[in-house]
Amino acid sequence: MQQGQMAYDRAITVFSPDGRLFQVEYAREAVKKGSTALGIKFKDGVVLLSEKKIRSRLVEKNSLEKIQLIDDYVATVTSGLVADARVLIDFARIGAQQEKVTYGSLTNIENLVKKVADQMQQYTQYGGVRPYGVSIIFAGTDTIGPRLFDCDPAGTINEYKSVAIGAGKDAVTEYIEKEYKDNMSLDEAIKMGIAALKAAVTDDSSMKEPEIASIKVGEKFHVYSAEEVSKYLN
Amino acid sequence: MQQGQMAYDRAITVFSPDGRLFQVEYAREAVKKGSTALGIKFKDGVVLLSEKKIRSRLVEKNSLEKIQLIDDYVATVTSGLVADARVLIDFARIGAQQEKVTYGSLTNIENLVKKVADQMQQYTQYGGVRPYGVSIIFAGTDTIGPRLFDCDPAGTINEYKSVAIGAGKDAVTEYIEKEYKDNMSLDEAIKMGIAALKAAVTDDSSMKEPEIASIKVGEKFHVYSAEEVSKYLN
Amino acid sequence: MQQGQMAYDRAITVFSPDGRLFQVEYAREAVKKGSTALGIKFKDGVVLLSEKKIRSRLVEKNSLEKIQLIDDYVATVTSGLVADARVLIDFARIGAQQEKVTYGSLTNIENLVKKVADQMQQYTQYGGVRPYGVSIIFAGTDTIGPRLFDCDPAGTINEYKSVAIGAGKDAVTEYIEKEYKDNMSLDEAIKMGIAALKAAVTDDSSMKEPEIASIKVGEKFHVYSAEEVSKYLN
Amino acid sequence: MQQGQMAYDRAITVFSPDGRLFQVEYAREAVKKGSTALGIKFKDGVVLLSEKKIRSRLVEKNSLEKIQLIDDYVATVTSGLVADARVLIDFARIGAQQEKVTYGSLTNIENLVKKVADQMQQYTQYGGVRPYGVSIIFAGTDTIGPRLFDCDPAGTINEYKSVAIGAGKDAVTEYIEKEYKDNMSLDEAIKMGIAALKAAVTDDSSMKEPEIASIKVGEKFHVYSAEEVSKYLN
Amino acid sequence: MQQGQMAYDRAITVFSPDGRLFQVEYAREAVKKGSTALGIKFKDGVVLLSEKKIRSRLVEKNSLEKIQLIDDYVATVTSGLVADARVLIDFARIGAQQEKVTYGSLTNIENLVKKVADQMQQYTQYGGVRPYGVSIIFAGTDTIGPRLFDCDPAGTINEYKSVAIGAGKDAVTEYIEKEYKDNMSLDEAIKMGIAALKAAVTDDSSMKEPEIASIKVGEKFHVYSAEEVSKYLN
Amino acid sequence: MQQGQMAYDRAITVFSPDGRLFQVEYAREAVKKGSTALGIKFKDGVVLLSEKKIRSRLVEKNSLEKIQLIDDYVATVTSGLVADARVLIDFARIGAQQEKVTYGSLTNIENLVKKVADQMQQYTQYGGVRPYGVSIIFAGTDTIGPRLFDCDPAGTINEYKSVAIGAGKDAVTEYIEKEYKDNMSLDEAIKMGIAALKAAVTDDSSMKEPEIASIKVGEKFHVYSAEEVSKYLN
Amino acid sequence: MQQGQMAYDRAITVFSPDGRLFQVEYAREAVKKGSTALGIKFKDGVVLLSEKKIRSRLVEKNSLEKIQLIDDYVATVTSGLVADARVLIDFARIGAQQEKVTYGSLTNIENLVKKVADQMQQYTQYGGVRPYGVSIIFAGTDTIGPRLFDCDPAGTINEYKSVAIGAGKDAVTEYIEKEYKDNMSLDEAIKMGIAALKAAVTDDSSMKEPEIASIKVGEKFHVYSAEEVSKYLN
Repeated sequence: MQQGQMAYDRAITVFSPDGRLFQVEYAREAVKKGSTALGIKFKDGVVLLSEKKIRSRLVEKNSLEKIQLIDDYVATVTSGLVADARVLIDFARIGAQQEKVTYGSLTNIENLVKKVADQMQQYTQYGGVRPYGVSIIFAGTDTIGPRLFDCDPAGTINEYKSVAIGAGKDAVTEYIEKEYKDNMSLDEAIKMGIAALKAAVTDDSSMKEPEIASIKVGEKFHVYSAEEVSKYLN
Repeated sequence: MQQGQMAYDRAITVFSPDGRLFQVEYAREAVKKGSTALGIKFKDGVVLLSEKKIRSRLVEKNSLEKIQLIDDYVATVTSGLVADARVLIDFARIGAQQEKVTYGSLTNIENLVKKVADQMQQYTQYGGVRPYGVSIIFAGTDTIGPRLFDCDPAGTINEYKSVAIGAGKDAVTEYIEKEYKDNMSLDEAIKMGIAALKAAVTDDSSMKEPEIASIKVGEKFHVYSAEEVSKYLN
Repeated sequence: MQQGQMAYDRAITVFSPDGRLFQVEYAREAVKKGSTALGIKFKDGVVLLSEKKIRSRLVEKNSLEKIQLIDDYVATVTSGLVADARVLIDFARIGAQQEKVTYGSLTNIENLVKKVADQMQQYTQYGGVRPYGVSIIFAGTDTIGPRLFDCDPAGTINEYKSVAIGAGKDAVTEYIEKEYKDNMSLDEAIKMGIAALKAAVTDDSSMKEPEIASIKVGEKFHVYSAEEVSKYLN
Repeated sequence: MQQGQMAYDRAITVFSPDGRLFQVEYAREAVKKGSTALGIKFKDGVVLLSEKKIRSRLVEKNSLEKIQLIDDYVATVTSGLVADARVLIDFARIGAQQEKVTYGSLTNIENLVKKVADQMQQYTQYGGVRPYGVSIIFAGTDTIGPRLFDCDPAGTINEYKSVAIGAGKDAVTEYIEKEYKDNMSLDEAIKMGIAALKAAVTDDSSMKEPEIASIKVGEKFHVYSAEEVSKYLN
Repeated sequence: MQQGQMAYDRAITVFSPDGRLFQVEYAREAVKKGSTALGIKFKDGVVLLSEKKIRSRLVEKNSLEKIQLIDDYVATVTSGLVADARVLIDFARIGAQQEKVTYGSLTNIENLVKKVADQMQQYTQYGGVRPYGVSIIFAGTDTIGPRLFDCDPAGTINEYKSVAIGAGKDAVTEYIEKEYKDNMSLDEAIKMGIAALKAAVTDDSSMKEPEIASIKVGEKFHVYSAEEVSKYLN
Repeated sequence: MQQGQMAYDRAITVFSPDGRLFQVEYAREAVKKGSTALGIKFKDGVVLLSEKKIRSRLVEKNSLEKIQLIDDYVATVTSGLVADARVLIDFARIGAQQEKVTYGSLTNIENLVKKVADQMQQYTQYGGVRPYGVSIIFAGTDTIGPRLFDCDPAGTINEYKSVAIGAGKDAVTEYIEKEYKDNMSLDEAIKMGIAALKAAVTDDSSMKEPEIASIKVGEKFHVYSAEEVSKYLN
Repeated sequence: MQQGQMAYDRAITVFSPDGRLFQVEYAREAVKKGSTALGIKFKDGVVLLSEKKIRSRLVEKNSLEKIQLIDDYVATVTSGLVADARVLIDFARIGAQQEKVTYGSLTNIENLVKKVADQMQQYTQYGGVRPYGVSIIFAGTDTIGPRLFDCDPAGTINEYKSVAIGAGKDAVTEYIEKEYKDNMSLDEAIKMGIAALKAAVTDDSSMKEPEIASIKVGEKFHVYSAEEVSKYLN
């Protein structure tokens, strides 16, 4: 910890002398403790993958699902504080409904991502709250084609060909930086994603049943069953 | 206590440098002081059990009941601050009534659990309040079948085959992890639950009259009388 | 005082590292300085007793009355901060009126106690206030029969066969634990109560004129006159 | 000052570890610096007396009057912060008007005292304010007969045969405890009051022109002129 | 500064252990730095005087006027923070207008003074503000005759035959205590006032052109021109 | 810095023990860093002058204009925090519009100045804000004739024959104190103003193109073009 | 860091003793860490340029765009906290829409810049928030001709012939100060801008694909394609 940091790190309304917001950086630490997830664009769609940390056989697997549909054409995968993620996903779902009621359909996913990110930015500028301790990957298709965004606790958005979040973010990113090719097939993308997850996750148990979901332009999101996933694992 | 922890642990709006929310962790300590309770799914239903700490013969036993019905098909058992639990149970009851008024029946218990959990998450993100010092097990049946959830002070939800809360959580969980079988009968589930409670609770007096309640698909919740309970104890 | 306690004990919105709310505990200390009072259920009713601390012959005795009627069928006795108690008793009276306007009568005293207790719980979770420094015994009869509750600064409720509050709580409780019998007559209950009070109160002057009130199923609350009380004292 | 007291004494929303509210106690110190005043019930009425501190011959004596009429049948005398007292007296006058508009007359002075006391209690429980630094004696007659109350910064009310406030409270009380007789005449009560004041007030100048006011059942409040007062002084 | 004073002197909502409000006392220090002003009642009216501190010949003298008319029959002179004084004078003018709209005329100046003083008292009891750093002398005539009040930062009011505020308060008061006679003529009062000011003000320049205003029963307030003032100075 | 000053200088709601408001004094320091400006009354009008600090040839000169018209008959020049000044000038413009809508014209500039000054005073008395870091000179003509005011961060107003603000305030004032004559012509006033500015400003570059604006009774405000200004500079 | 600075640098509502607002200065540090961008006026228009920091080939380049259109005739380029910038750009877009709805077109860009700058100033004066950590260049054409402004975290606006923000601000400004000529052609302006960026940016990768956009009077804003940009780079 930097000399004097503690003087500036306990309120989101305080810049440090070198212009940093420590509370946002600490919220990112909560994300770095989260499960590893990633998204990959392929030729005509996007695939999302997430490790699944099953700490006990007594937990119902479906209740740990990190990949959540926002509507038929947009899905998210999150990493960080679980309850914060749930609240933001509900916020996104309501936002998506509003877009549809207003415009008939969700024509630009970026607008939805901005709505969520603006909410997250607010919590970095006003006192009496803390930032959301979560990063979100948004994937889907809209009138522009396949889209893949992430949004971090600062409320910063970027669009990607491939992006990772959570504990294994750096390892996954390093792997994909090397291997990514444009115009991959869905199959190639899933295989690359599983390989990248394996490179990042050292805990074997959490790679027994990764979550996978994909969407192709013109189709709806597909969440892979355990059987479908196991085929790819072998 | 970790070096420097005290700088970050007195406000729910402050992340520690490693991304933790100490006030939520301290609220969990309040739960760890609570009475031990658990839920177990069996073939076609769920059973709830709780030790009953009777500190004096002058207390009316019914006023210590930890198992509380939300409606005919959903019940909770709580551990932690008693007054916090009461307030959240009332919140859940109102939520259940609203669902019924809107949809005719409570078709998905998970929606109700999320309503309560969202309330609890709010108290981990805004200043001027403290988190709820309570964990809640929700059990019941809905259109999906038997359901069993817990919700902790962070507002995190998980669904389980079996889950425990309170002082004996670890001991109960260890026991059930070993013994749990799918497709148990109601009788088998109750016996396993009592055995697990006994494994966790060292204070004999609080195991004289554990609380038991169960529900089967198609039936309403049944709270066991002292007589019914005593049969299982022998 | 425990090591480090002072870091966590000056705001009701802060849990200590071991999950305690020190401000609630300190409010209980205010109650422990209060006058001793108790309630006892007998066969078909409840009796309330309280010592009366008469510090000066210039005080009008009636203005020190600890036993207060909420309506004809419910009474309270309080211990702790006198002004806090008065405010909560007024709150209870309004609550009782509302029940009657809504339902025609007060069919369940527990609902009234919960209304007051919820108010008290709120003051343990929100910043900018302090908890109420008072414990309240509620006694009465409703459709269930004789009822006897207490509510402490945390907003925790319990139902009792007999309960005591104030400076002499432990001594009274110890006495009654030993002597309590089910199905006592009103006379037996009053005599036991006076004996218990005497066991707890070392200051003779405050036992010269204890307050006594009782209710039987089917009758209204009766507050004993000085003459009636003096008969029991001899 | 007790060890550690300063940790708990700067906010009204903080109990000390032994259940005290230091800010209320400090407000009482403001009262203890105030001018001495007292009330005495006699056979069929009440008399109020107050020393009058005339610091300069340039002050108009009437502007120092401590005895203030609320209406024809109720009067107050206050000690402590002068501006706080004025605000509370106005509050009481409005309260008395409201009672009259609602019920036709002020049938119970205790209701009025409780209204003022509840206002004072609020300022001992909520942050962002300080308690009122004043004690008030209320005297008057209602359907019950002569009434005499005091209300302190905690919002605590008591009813008295005789009560004193201010710097000379202890000396006056000690005197009256010894001398008070039931069924005194108005004359006896005034003489006893002057004697008690003289016993308490060491500053001769402030006893040159004490304020006196009295009420008898069936009559209105009478404020004594300088001539009437001087007769009693000799 | 008293030992430990700094622990209690930075918030208006905090009493010190001996019942003082330091912020009010500090606000009085702001008044003690102000220009000296005074009021004197004479046989059938009141006169106000104030030194005029002319720091530069570039300042328009009229913009330094301390004596301000509230309406034709009431005037004020203030000492302390100039902007605070202006705000309170505007507050008083609005108050006077409201009285006239409601009652046809300002029949009792004391009501107006209380309105301003209540405003000032509020700023001594609520957090998040500071007291007004100003004392105000109110002079005028009403149905009672000539009136002369002052109001200090605590919101305390007194009525006087003669009163002074500001840096020279003590010196002026000492002078007038000695010399004041009832039933003076206007001329005698002005001469005494100028003599008193001279006794208090050591800075000759500020006595070159004191401000003078007077009112007689049945007449309106008269503000003296420089010529009129200079006659009295010689 | 005075001993102990730091205990009282971080909140506008706190008086220091000697009755000072440090935050207001610090805001004045922001003004003392500002560019030098001044106003001078002449026989039948007012002239305003300001140095123009041109730090780079890439800045558009007009965007640095310190002299701003409020309407055709009132102008301001400010010194201190630029953004604060802009906000207050907009506030003044709206205030002037309101006066005109209500009264048909701005008949008294002092009313407008008071409106702005009252806004500035508010920010010296309430918590959660800081004072405005700006001083404003108001100049213009109204039914009274030529008017010239300044208003400082405390919200204090004075009217002047000539007044200066900003870094060179003392030097300008010293110069004008010596040279000022009543009944100057416009030309004489401008020449005196330029001479005073030159006496105060040591940075030659900022005196290359001072801003000048003037108004005569019966005419509108005139802002001098670079050509007009350069004539006066030679 | 200056001696004692830490006493004044953690709240935007606190001036330092020398009249500085440290939180605004720290927000400027966040801007100094941002990407370098600049604007240049030419004969009949304005050009904007920004380096593009491409940290990974997996990021979609368009999502990093620093140059954002507000409408067809106004564009911005920002430097500092990305999420803050996005929120302010949306604020500007809504402001531009409002102007058009009210006046039919955006006739003066300065009004729009002031709207944004006022929003930014607010966050430097009120507690419970932090300043925006961003500087914005506004460029466009209106009825006055080509316009070029910047706005910094203090809410200060200036108009320029050329202006730079971000990490390379000083280097760019130094270059342009030397080279800028009035009445350049669009081509000359773009070449000068690229040369200035190259002088400032030492990281070659971020100069591979700078962003360029330009507007001419009578035309709409044109954002340059990668192909168009690459022509200028060679």
